[in-house]
Amino acid sequence: MAIIAGLPGAGKTTVLSKVVELAKREGLRLRVVNYGTLMLKTARAKKFVSNRDEIRRLPIETQEKLQLLASEEINRLGKGRGIIVVDTHMIINTPRGWWPGIPAKNLEKIAPSQIISIEASPKEILRRRGKDTSRLRDTEEISDVEKELLYSRNVAAACSVLTGCPVSVVINREGKIDEAVEEVLSVIRGMKNG
Amino acid sequence: MAIIAGLPGAGKTTVLSKVVELAKREGLRLRVVNYGTLMLKTARAKKFVSNRDEIRRLPIETQEKLQLLASEEINRLGKGRGIIVVDTHMIINTPRGWWPGIPAKNLEKIAPSQIISIEASPKEILRRRGKDTSRLRDTEEISDVEKELLYSRNVAAACSVLTGCPVSVVINREGKIDEAVEEVLSVIRGMKNG
Amino acid sequence: MAIIAGLPGAGKTTVLSKVVELAKREGLRLRVVNYGTLMLKTARAKKFVSNRDEIRRLPIETQEKLQLLASEEINRLGKGRGIIVVDTHMIINTPRGWWPGIPAKNLEKIAPSQIISIEASPKEILRRRGKDTSRLRDTEEISDVEKELLYSRNVAAACSVLTGCPVSVVINREGKIDEAVEEVLSVIRGMKNG
Repeated sequence: MAIIAGLPGAGKTTVLSKVVELAKREGLRLRVVNYGTLMLKTARAKKFVSNRDEIRRLPIETQEKLQLLASEEINRLGKGRGIIVVDTHMIINTPRGWWPGIPAKNLEKIAPSQIISIEASPKEILRRRGKDTSRLRDTEEISDVEKELLYSRNVAAACSVLTGCPVSVVINREGKIDEAVEEVLSVIRGMKNG
Repeated sequence: MAIIAGLPGAGKTTVLSKVVELAKREGLRLRVVNYGTLMLKTARAKKFVSNRDEIRRLPIETQEKLQLLASEEINRLGKGRGIIVVDTHMIINTPRGWWPGIPAKNLEKIAPSQIISIEASPKEILRRRGKDTSRLRDTEEISDVEKELLYSRNVAAACSVLTGCPVSVVINREGKIDEAVEEVLSVIRGMKNG
Repeated sequence: MAIIAGLPGAGKTTVLSKVVELAKREGLRLRVVNYGTLMLKTARAKKFVSNRDEIRRLPIETQEKLQLLASEEINRLGKGRGIIVVDTHMIINTPRGWWPGIPAKNLEKIAPSQIISIEASPKEILRRRGKDTSRLRDTEEISDVEKELLYSRNVAAACSVLTGCPVSVVINREGKIDEAVEEVLSVIRGMKNG
């Protein structure tokens, strides 16, 4: 079971879809589970929400319950064959601050054996978030993303100490996505052999 | 239950007193509990010390016991009405290094649903600590405070993963304390509604 | 029980051997236990490996078992007299990323009352790792070591919150090893008295 995380704009989804494609070619059994989608499924079944956007507007305490139910579902999936990759975030920006994507009691359920953090330069992240970065230099926005990156690594470290699993930081450099994809694949191959 | 923390010199006490004043005006039930004061109360009752300064000179192991007793007291207070705000530190500077303000077993007792970290620029912090900052530039002192700030965020991240609660970093900018106060209030309002 | 950690090249071994020497002179009972050596001993007894290099090539999951056995051994040693100093790493570089030197379940066994992290400047670390640093300026290598240093402090913070023990960061400055040694000794003396 691997957790793959990344800030919005780090390019996690694109990297991950290429990883899945290449993994299939080399016969690696890989199953990607999106944490948010699992939360949405449960939230819908419980009639809490009708769409994804509404989840973010739920009280954090309700979101916590959805998080835990999703983790239990992942725990069940993990009992099958192949490697499960949980697509999620280390931190989620909320009006009440940075919320941990996978708190301790969820980590216990998921019991990951690997964490992969997809990162990119703050400028690149802002560009992918649709900001006009042509005039960005040392702006506040850049320093905010730097803070987010550092903080997400703090959270990854805490998750790593709690679970005992390694954290691989993969930099998704502009125009070099294939390198990032290969790095992720190499870590996953290591899990298979390890 | 919210934990509000900040390095000495970040302006936490001033921010907090204004938060309490405004909260009262809008009818928010807020009760501030000072962790250190609770520790002192217990230490006095047990005849360990007669004043606050002596606490810091107690062996860390004795201070740990006082910490745990204070956490149990806060746990009891939390069963009442309204929002409890625990006024404390993420880290405490001791001759043996950075000591965590609220270690895991205390977090378990306090069970916070929110962490608020009051920060300020290193220069501002040094100024409020009474240093003559007129000649400070990239001095060692500034880089030491930067390290402390980063490290206190590391500790906040670990506390957040352990408890599952969000961390709101509020910057107390010089001359803009009202903005910091409003940010804290907005987080607390979110807790009430959330 | 103290944990003393440092990145390869930080000079931990040299500092530690001088600490032991001076401690003996002043009558401090100090016993240094090398975590890696303990792991190797168990691995050999179990016929997993015949030498130290082979340990790093074992699957992480097997290394985890060795880690836990070593921690149990340290726990037994800790019941004796004097201060045990566990010589180890906060993080270990593996092909699958940063692996935590002492994950939560091991921390529980070791139950340290002090963490000491030996650090040095990235340039100094690279020099001690045998790199030609004469031309190094803002190279990728320097920024990689900076990242490692920051991340190792993230891990130290998580360990500190989990155990409740203080973290002393000791900078081993070039040509000033005696200062680093004295700082470590002073922390250890504090443990004895504390």
